[in-house]
Amino acid sequence: MENAAPTTDWVVRTADLLEAVRTRAPLVQCITNTVVQNVTANVLLALGASAAMVDVPTEAGPFAGVADGLLVNTGTPHAEPSTASREAAAAAAEAGTPWVLDPVAVGSLPVRTALARDLLAMRPTVLRGNASEVLAVLGASAGGRGVDSTVGTEDARDAAVAAADAGTAQAVAVSGAVDLLVAPEGLVRVANGTELLTRITGGGCALGAVVAAFAAVAPGRALDAAVAATAVHTIAAELAARDAGGPGAFQPLFLDRLASLTPEDVVREARITADGQSARAASTTIGAGS
Amino acid sequence: MENAAPTTDWVVRTADLLEAVRTRAPLVQCITNTVVQNVTANVLLALGASAAMVDVPTEAGPFAGVADGLLVNTGTPHAEPSTASREAAAAAAEAGTPWVLDPVAVGSLPVRTALARDLLAMRPTVLRGNASEVLAVLGASAGGRGVDSTVGTEDARDAAVAAADAGTAQAVAVSGAVDLLVAPEGLVRVANGTELLTRITGGGCALGAVVAAFAAVAPGRALDAAVAATAVHTIAAELAARDAGGPGAFQPLFLDRLASLTPEDVVREARITADGQSARAASTTIGAGS
Amino acid sequence: MENAAPTTDWVVRTADLLEAVRTRAPLVQCITNTVVQNVTANVLLALGASAAMVDVPTEAGPFAGVADGLLVNTGTPHAEPSTASREAAAAAAEAGTPWVLDPVAVGSLPVRTALARDLLAMRPTVLRGNASEVLAVLGASAGGRGVDSTVGTEDARDAAVAAADAGTAQAVAVSGAVDLLVAPEGLVRVANGTELLTRITGGGCALGAVVAAFAAVAPGRALDAAVAATAVHTIAAELAARDAGGPGAFQPLFLDRLASLTPEDVVREARITADGQSARAASTTIGAGS
Repeated sequence: MENAAPTTDWVVRTADLLEAVRTRAPLVQCITNTVVQNVTANVLLALGASAAMVDVPTEAGPFAGVADGLLVNTGTPHAEPSTASREAAAAAAEAGTPWVLDPVAVGSLPVRTALARDLLAMRPTVLRGNASEVLAVLGASAGGRGVDSTVGTEDARDAAVAAADAGTAQAVAVSGAVDLLVAPEGLVRVANGTELLTRITGGGCALGAVVAAFAAVAPGRALDAAVAATAVHTIAAELAARDAGGPGAFQPLFLDRLASLTPEDVVREARITADGQSARAASTTIGAGS
Repeated sequence: MENAAPTTDWVVRTADLLEAVRTRAPLVQCITNTVVQNVTANVLLALGASAAMVDVPTEAGPFAGVADGLLVNTGTPHAEPSTASREAAAAAAEAGTPWVLDPVAVGSLPVRTALARDLLAMRPTVLRGNASEVLAVLGASAGGRGVDSTVGTEDARDAAVAAADAGTAQAVAVSGAVDLLVAPEGLVRVANGTELLTRITGGGCALGAVVAAFAAVAPGRALDAAVAATAVHTIAAELAARDAGGPGAFQPLFLDRLASLTPEDVVREARITADGQSARAASTTIGAGS
Repeated sequence: MENAAPTTDWVVRTADLLEAVRTRAPLVQCITNTVVQNVTANVLLALGASAAMVDVPTEAGPFAGVADGLLVNTGTPHAEPSTASREAAAAAAEAGTPWVLDPVAVGSLPVRTALARDLLAMRPTVLRGNASEVLAVLGASAGGRGVDSTVGTEDARDAAVAAADAGTAQAVAVSGAVDLLVAPEGLVRVANGTELLTRITGGGCALGAVVAAFAAVAPGRALDAAVAATAVHTIAAELAARDAGGPGAFQPLFLDRLASLTPEDVVREARITADGQSARAASTTIGAGS
């Protein structure tokens, strides 16, 4: 395991990848729950990517072979999108299409939990969820704490590190007040964001699609993609929140910030810290990103 | 049948229940049509409740046993959500989870009409719809007028009173320009609102979820929950409409008003009237709420 | 084939049909993809029409017989809405209900392509799509250029003219930077719009529903309906874009402009040109509409 790059490099790479998404406009296939399809597509379009919600069996697989990236979110596990999810993940793995698994609300709900574990066995490029979801899909526990909505991202750190080291996913993104991004080559935290992201539906689900867009322009660099996507998403949200009186005003402002975010905004606002020694070591943050 | 409480008490209870929703953040399971899922979830989140759109068979039933409240809306009666609806309603009834039936567009459309009647036989905590829908699901007529979009809430009064007295539902909420809330212990009208609620999709459907959120924090008090939910929803809408130039601007303003609405706003703005004698008696409104 | 009416007449007819939509509030049944259902319904409501997303088998057919207009969009071809689409199109054709086919993303995706071709065989009132989609559903090629996202509306002109002349649809609407509207009696271009319509999801899909609303109030006048719907939609978008800082702010502004657009706005802003000689002749635009 190499040391993680210095923090300033994470910020620079984030800014560079934002430009790459804008320039190359990756086409991201999304198989996601019906509640957040609209906001997910709008987030991708605002960012400069393209979105295609192809979630029908026999279409989903071939499309995943030609798309630039794929998101599979287990939030509406009806029969057809579930079949399409399995088909698309298999085709993405076969074709080398970067793909993200978002195991929404897995745990006690049986249909999506079985689906998410089947998908995880296909080794997604990035596994993204909140701490409870990441722990649940990995079959891990939160070190004596129950898996509930109060679990924090650090509670999922050990399980995420173990999963990344085992190659379960190339990177694991644990979303929360401070996001935790883990891969064999390092452990990174992103401290940007706003509580308003939790007061709208799709704040986290759309991030899964953003990770797929960044993974599409950073082949073989899953951790870079996860860090950059998380930073861009949460910085745009944080800037939007400064002007928003509430969750209603926040949504259009968030899309506008995603559309207008500059590399300079990223450099100025990013609060990225990297654990420079080892992803396995006890966490010691080594400086802020800005 | 006891006399309904004085009007000022309705306003105070509404303000108290708003605080209870904010404090306890009830988890509301929503099985609702795909058109309005997003706005429904956002309305619940803005209000301070939690939302979970669990509408898959084998998940929906067990989840309804642990959720704080349940909405079943018949607007997209595909096979899987229909099965999930039956399963969830049965589990809610068994577990004592308060639940709301919203019989969207029942009447001549056969699939949802059969579904809604099956669900109604499970005795929802609150039946909520516009006058046409309430009449149709109850198999009643509008006293000589056709059941069409021009039917007013008062046209459904007798049928609603009869249904509440028969225990078909603990309370019946008939939505319209003046909302009518009916239970064996009283008949209440809420005159707040704005025409803009009819110029966006989901204005009524989201109210069904709000009723479920209030019912979750008012066990055994279905009428209180229906009145409070209706008043909070329509007051927030009315305040938003004052600042909105059209239906587009209205939506984010509505969410922001739901998020920021104070008990003082409720007391100042509520136009609630109660029929103090009997739900069965001819209606005589006895004073405005503000 | 008669000469097309002078350009000023197109503008006047557009303004007149906008008033007719507002006055008669046609009920438009929409069978459309889940990503855009919400924005589609909100666009119709903002415009003054009514929306009903009835996409369940056994309901969809009878409803299409009584609705004022129908949109069938192939963007989510799951089994139930696909069956409902076939049922509704057949019932609309039988009952004389004007209906619009929007063959979203047909081409290489097999399920929706087969569905769209089956629907096309039922001779929609209007076929609407971008150039790639129109070419693909017609089985045509773009004159030596590949069918991809860079194909322009003029590349689909010959195929659209041939299809209209053959009665495949009464009119063909090819959407793009300059919209192309084709029928046996003429060829019209609408040059209004904004790039922001492509930065939100549903910008094109919602137009399909708007065409259905206008066709509902212009029986037997498919080209008039297609031109008027396209002009109203793109003028409202263009006006909204003038005040929008990005795609987020654009959406509510667009709905508000749809709601407030006046006949005077149409006359002032429309950039409609008509090919006065023949839809088959080489295109020579003969003056701007304003």
